[in-house]
Parts: sequence; structure tokens; C-alpha cells
Amino acid sequence: MPQHPAPVGREDLLARFEQALEATGVLTNGPDMAPYASDWRGRVHGVPLAVLRPTTTGQVAAAVRICAQTRTPLVPQGGNTGQCAGAVPAADGTQVVLSLGRLDRIRSLDIENNTITAEAGCILANLQQAAAAADRLFPLSLGAEGSCQIGGNLATNAGGTAVLRYGNARDMVLGLEVVLADGSIWEGLRALRKDNTGYDLKQLFLGAEGTLGVITAAVLKLYPAPRAAVTAFMAVPDPAAAVNLFNRFRARCGDRLTGFELISRLCLDILFRQIERFSDPLPQRYEWYVLCELSDTHAAEGLHALAEASLEAGMQAGEVLDATLAQSKSQAERLWRMREEIPEANRREAPWVRHDVSVPVSRIPELIGLGSERLRKRFPGVQIVAFGHIGDGNIHFNATAADAAHAEAFIAQQEAVYALVHDLVMSLGGSFSAEHGIGQLKVRELARYKSPVELALMQRIKQALDPECILNPGKVLPPG
Amino acid sequence: MPQHPAPVGREDLLARFEQALEATGVLTNGPDMAPYASDWRGRVHGVPLAVLRPTTTGQVAAAVRICAQTRTPLVPQGGNTGQCAGAVPAADGTQVVLSLGRLDRIRSLDIENNTITAEAGCILANLQQAAAAADRLFPLSLGAEGSCQIGGNLATNAGGTAVLRYGNARDMVLGLEVVLADGSIWEGLRALRKDNTGYDLKQLFLGAEGTLGVITAAVLKLYPAPRAAVTAFMAVPDPAAAVNLFNRFRARCGDRLTGFELISRLCLDILFRQIERFSDPLPQRYEWYVLCELSDTHAAEGLHALAEASLEAGMQAGEVLDATLAQSKSQAERLWRMREEIPEANRREAPWVRHDVSVPVSRIPELIGLGSERLRKRFPGVQIVAFGHIGDGNIHFNATAADAAHAEAFIAQQEAVYALVHDLVMSLGGSFSAEHGIGQLKVRELARYKSPVELALMQRIKQALDPECILNPGKVLPPG
Repeated sequence: MPQHPAPVGREDLLARFEQALEATGVLTNGPDMAPYASDWRGRVHGVPLAVLRPTTTGQVAAAVRICAQTRTPLVPQGGNTGQCAGAVPAADGTQVVLSLGRLDRIRSLDIENNTITAEAGCILANLQQAAAAADRLFPLSLGAEGSCQIGGNLATNAGGTAVLRYGNARDMVLGLEVVLADGSIWEGLRALRKDNTGYDLKQLFLGAEGTLGVITAAVLKLYPAPRAAVTAFMAVPDPAAAVNLFNRFRARCGDRLTGFELISRLCLDILFRQIERFSDPLPQRYEWYVLCELSDTHAAEGLHALAEASLEAGMQAGEVLDATLAQSKSQAERLWRMREEIPEANRREAPWVRHDVSVPVSRIPELIGLGSERLRKRFPGVQIVAFGHIGDGNIHFNATAADAAHAEAFIAQQEAVYALVHDLVMSLGGSFSAEHGIGQLKVRELARYKSPVELALMQRIKQALDPECILNPGKVLPPG
Repeated sequence: MPQHPAPVGREDLLARFEQALEATGVLTNGPDMAPYASDWRGRVHGVPLAVLRPTTTGQVAAAVRICAQTRTPLVPQGGNTGQCAGAVPAADGTQVVLSLGRLDRIRSLDIENNTITAEAGCILANLQQAAAAADRLFPLSLGAEGSCQIGGNLATNAGGTAVLRYGNARDMVLGLEVVLADGSIWEGLRALRKDNTGYDLKQLFLGAEGTLGVITAAVLKLYPAPRAAVTAFMAVPDPAAAVNLFNRFRARCGDRLTGFELISRLCLDILFRQIERFSDPLPQRYEWYVLCELSDTHAAEGLHALAEASLEAGMQAGEVLDATLAQSKSQAERLWRMREEIPEANRREAPWVRHDVSVPVSRIPELIGLGSERLRKRFPGVQIVAFGHIGDGNIHFNATAADAAHAEAFIAQQEAVYALVHDLVMSLGGSFSAEHGIGQLKVRELARYKSPVELALMQRIKQALDPECILNPGKVLPPG
């Protein structure tokens, strides 16, 4: 750690960066920097002092060392697809963006060890494809996979649709290479399933959103590629029945259960209104649905029989009102596209106050029931959509006004809506940010809901690893 | 954190403990303290200042607060079944043992959320049974499960036989309750599958062997109970074939593959010599064996067919020389008991220099091949047993002299043997302590093999969470 950092002028600083990264590695004019300056939803706009684009871990270390020596704050950035503006610099022009996008090599793929070693800038979809080409599965999967980068996925502990079976991004990591706040490199690229030699340091950097170190590479787990899949679309009476049905499927199917998504009727109505190519998969209207996937490394026949038997049992128990099993791969893909297009359809329909919350699975019915009741009482006529990952307890619970004329007034009360829903979630032992992280948009919620003991612990960790507060200041932790 | 700790006399200190814990919670005479003073293998003997036996988290907090105020070092202890003497106090009579054994309540079991909330002192086998009674599986399983406690399992990130499918102890934890070094309580008992709200603090305490905080309770994941299992005992030509066979089974069977253990011939010879009730499962002698288990939440027929097809494919590829499938549950249990008795048979046979090492799965053949070659060259006539968890890359690689007459002389060279094997392991990207941790017996190895950057990171974390070095001093981290 430098004891006597020497603040320098802007020109001198840029010259140092250019010496370390070459001219092509340093962007300084507005139009070049624009794609790195704002979040992808266009809500948060920053002004970078410069954008650094290193091509090697050594260059990342050199850049961070210059920042440490000059007390220049830096903002690590991957694909810039985050939901909480965690990769957007401050608007005051004092922070440099450190883009990892050119650090994009797959360093190795070890088929026998079922691991892939990838640099931070690798696009998630490219890793999925590299694994598939080796007849393996890299299971992390989410909407932004065509442009998000693995470094960002790890720094935010990304979730997505495969968490039920494979866990969050954190669970897919065996080792990390990290540039620390003083520019030194922690070589933690181990490819081991078991290693109990002292503190598990990689855990510090996973999910820390670049505030404790800059992840430059990772060793990731690969899994056997599935050979068969079955998709079922089921109408259920209510969220409580969906939870029971989930546990029924899970007990019978075990790890074959790789998807179990709740969808409320309003999601479908909006979808059919906004995106023409979809229509109702079932002949009648129902209030609640589940989209379920079973998959297996083994032959398809057994899987189909298992799906049908589980469905039949669910119907007999009154947990399923009607259902359709996809009869082809394209039918299955169509059903999953419906689910995936819900956020886009919602976006086209109206402005929403959105919540990315989780609760214990057993408390999902209370979350949806009490949340809807309280919102309707406080904001008469409010429209609510609920959809998400039953098995993870992670529900996207979004609200908008009764009609377009009242939309703006409703959005103006966003903080009150947040407070109502998040207070409920916390009273159910839940989380106000299940998969999107904190970034800069949820720092206030963190300060509000975390205990003083927990906040102090986080601050002590930050202080221990980044005493000069060089790394992504203003993100995750409340000031002070 | 107390700024001005006040050292006190022994009597005063004991009086404070007794006030906080009641008289039954404080042991001070030698015979009472004996079971807490030494490790179970009888190699390391400590002298406790006192043994504290709190019954509630509040009492743990009170005890730690007294230690913090008086700068009294404390050693958290669970079932005291560790392999590295991490729960044994120093011999100078200055450290108190904080036994968690009376903190043994199961606080709740949430079937719908698939979680159990248990206090640190719960015996592992009791948790397994509580889960089974609710038709669920708590998969952590290891030799000491009848006496080890879950708090110790978590503090040491225990491994065992289920890691291949379910991960290490760390992977089974959703939330923790921890008493910190100043006696405050971190309430992190969350039961969520997804929670991205700041640093994942529980990771700090898992595997830290009580040096960063005292785990008092945990929320643990439960899994669907298996309904069927198939066990196969297979002779293989060599470790490379075993690795190929592992990947063949894993690709075909996916998560049904729940056990895949390598056993060298000498393990069996010693077993049959030392423990009479066992005999060779196959008619001929082979040099290497694999004991494999498939299990499933679903019906048995499919599983048997899958096992037979995978075995057949392995034979055709030359990876399997001969095999037997257990035809009954008792046959399967007998095969697994063989595997489990290997350490005990070894212990009866001779004194060994033992290594608990891991490498990437792809490098297991090099580990065993080069390790054996180098040991034989350096110590002519040395006998080597190799057995362990192929899928985890975790091999128990133990050596003894050619015969009893030379045993003592060989053991006297223990450090040289360690160095030879661990140097090789590290050159293969491995770990010198795969599942047993560091405790006090491997601190020197840690200092030797960890980089200065990594050692400094660990020290900074220790300093941040336990600045007065109250918690389990002398364990895990090298002095300084």
C-alpha cells in the first residue's frame, strides 16, 4: 500500500496510463468514452476521467498501481449490463473506468477436470459455446449473456435461470486471479474441488462488485451436457399450490428439475398484447402458471414418463388445473421464449416500480399475497405482475398504475412503493436484492436494512483490502 | 472492540466466567478438562485455563466479551474430531476452551424451503437423522459423524464422501449466526438461495477454523432423499483409466454419480490382513480398483440399467478389467464398509506418513505415478497406499517403511516425506490440505507454500476481524 500517494495533474496522469497501456488502451474523448459512461438502461450517467482498456493482467495491475499511487478512484467495468449501475463512474469526472473487455482469452479448457479458465472480459455466451464444443455445460445463463462478461458476472454473483440446479455464479468458481487495490496480483487460479488451506480468499471478491479487487481471470466448473429435456406449462390455483408442486417435482425428479418459474396471469395478458407472436398455451384462462423444465444426461424416454407421472400426481393433489407438455424442441423453446420476453413486454406496456426480491421458498405465498394486498390498499387500482424463480424464492414483483394516465404519478411514489415491499420482504426473512446486487442504486436500501454489526463488518473488510478507497467508491457500501 | 483491555488475575477471571455461564458452564479441574485438552488421536496435548460450556448464543457472546475485555485467548471446540489439532489449546495454560457442545438444539426444520436451522453443537449424525425423518437428505457425511459437531464441520469446511455431488460443508450453508471477537453477535441466519446484498460475510467464517469468529448456529440446505442406489466394485488397469472411467460415468449418469473412490491393491491386502471379516470381492487380484455409487430420487430399474450400460461401455474401452455389482443393500453396505475401514486397517498395520492432498482430477495419474516413483527412489522399499475421492481430485497418499523393523526410522524422516509429496502436489497445481484444514499441525506448510500476497491478505482479514488476536491464536496463520 503506498504510504504517500502523490496527486498529479490530469495530463501527467494520462501520460502515465498511456505509458502503461499504450495509446490504444486509453480513451479520453467524450464520444469514445460514451459507451462506458452510462448504464445500459440510460438512467445513470457518469463522466469518466478516462477509460482504460488493458489487454493483460499485467496491464491491469499497472493501471491499478498508478491509481493507487495517485489516489485516482477507478470503476471496474465488464459488459456494463448491470441492473444497479455498479459499473458507472461518478459524474464529477474524477474516476477512471477500467474496462476488462479486451482481457478476453480462454486460457485453457481441461475436459478431464471439467474446468475452463477464462479471462474477465470473456462474453458469457462465448464460454457457454466453448463448453458445448467440448461436450460440457457451463450452466450460468441469463438475459444479457450475449454481451455480459464473466468478470462482471462473478463480481456481481449473477443469478439467472440455472440457479435452482447449479447455484449462483459464486458456486461455479474454483479459483480467481485478482488485482488488489495496491496493484499487486493475487494468483488464486486454482482448479481444485477441495482445498482447505486457510481463508477462502476468492469468496471476498465474488459478489463484491469490484470494491475489494479487480477480477482478471477465473477457473470455472463445467458440468455434463444434458441429453434430454422436457418442458411443461401448467396452470395452478395459486402461489401456495405452486410451492407444493415445486416440492413434489423436486422430491420425485431430484436434480433433473432444472427450471420452475412462476408466472401470473397479467404477465401473459401483457405479453400477448405487446408481443404479437405469442398466444395462450392453454384453452382456458387461469390466474397462475408454472413453467417447468426437467433435463437429464440420460435418454429421453424415462424423463418423459417421469414428467407425466409427476404432473398426474400434481393434478390428483389439486395443485395442477390444466397443463401442456411441449411435444417438440421448438414448442419447448417457444414456451421458454414466452417466459424470457415477459420483462420486455412489461417495459413496452408501462413504467414499473420493480423489485428483485427473495424470501424462503415457504414464504412465497405470503410475499405475493400480503404484498399485493398492501399495495392495492395503499395505491388503489395498482396493477401487479409477479414472476420468477420458485425454487430460488426469487420473485420479480413489479407494480404500475391502473392506467397510462396515472403512470407518472405512481412512479413519483417509487420510494414509498419500495419501502412497502421491502419492509414486507425483510419481515419474511427475505432479501431486497436477490440477484441484481447493490451498485449505486440500492446503497440506501443496504444502509436501511442491514444491522449496524453487519455494516461495520463490511466496512472493516473494505478498510482491510482497500484502505485508500480506490476501488469503485460509492458502490455497495454507504459513505462513512 | 475494547480499547483498554484490563488483564485480571485467574480467580477474578474464573469468577466472571461463572457469573456469565453459571457454575456448571465452567470446568477448571484437570480430570474434568481432560477430554477437551488433547486431540482425539492423542498427539497434541494442551492445558486449558478453563473449559467454558455455554448453553445459549447469549452465553457464548458473554464469554467472548469477557475474553476480549481481559485479553484472554479462546479456542472454540466442537466434537474435537479434527485431524490438525485446531481445537486443542496451547500447553501454557493461558487459553480457555470454548466448547459448543451444549448449544445443541435444532431450532427449526422448514420442509417447504428445504432447510434446517441448527446450533453449532448438534452432532452431525443427529442432523442427518432429523432430515431423514422429514424425508429429506442432509448430505454431509464423514467418518466422525457420530461425534463431530456441525459447528466444527462448518468452521473446518469439512469434506467427506458426498463432496462429488453435494460439495463441501461450505456449499451446504445458507446462513450463519456468529459471535465476533468483541462478543457482539452477527445475525446472519438467512434461509435464502439468492441474496446479493453486499459482501457475503458467512464465507469469512466458514473454513476459518474459529480464528475469525465463533459459529453458534447455521441454516443448512436439505436435499430430496434418494430412493434407489447401485454400488459397483470395479478393477481398473491404473489411475489414468480410473479418471477416464470417472468422466465416462459422469457424462452418462450426471448427478446420479454420488461416489467414485479409488483404492490401490495394498489397501485391500492390509484390510484383509487386519480386519478379518472382509475378503476379496473379485476372484482375481488387480492393482487398482474403483468403488462407485449411483443414486437417484427415482425408481431403481432405470438406475440398474444405467449402471450396467456404463460398466459395459467402460469394459469395451478397456477401462474396466472386471467388476461386480452389489445385488443387495447388504452387499452394497459391505463394499462401502470395506472402503471406510481402510484408514483403521492402515492404522493397525503400521505407522504412516499421511498426506491429505488434492490436485486437478486430470492430474491424479501424475500425482500417484510421480509421487510413488520419487518416494521409492528416495526411500527404497517404501510401501505406499493411495485411496480417495477421484471426482474431488482428493487422494490420501500414505507411506510407511518396507517392514516393521524400519518403521521408526522412516517416521523420523516425516518432514522429508511431507516435503517430497507436497512439493510435487504444489507443482501440479494442488493443495497440501484438501479437507483436513490447517489447525496447528500444518501452519508451517501454509507458511511455506502460500505466496506473500496471499499470506498478507489472510493477515489483513485476521487483523480486521480479530485485532487483539483473541480467537484461536496459533491456528491457521503463521505468527507475525
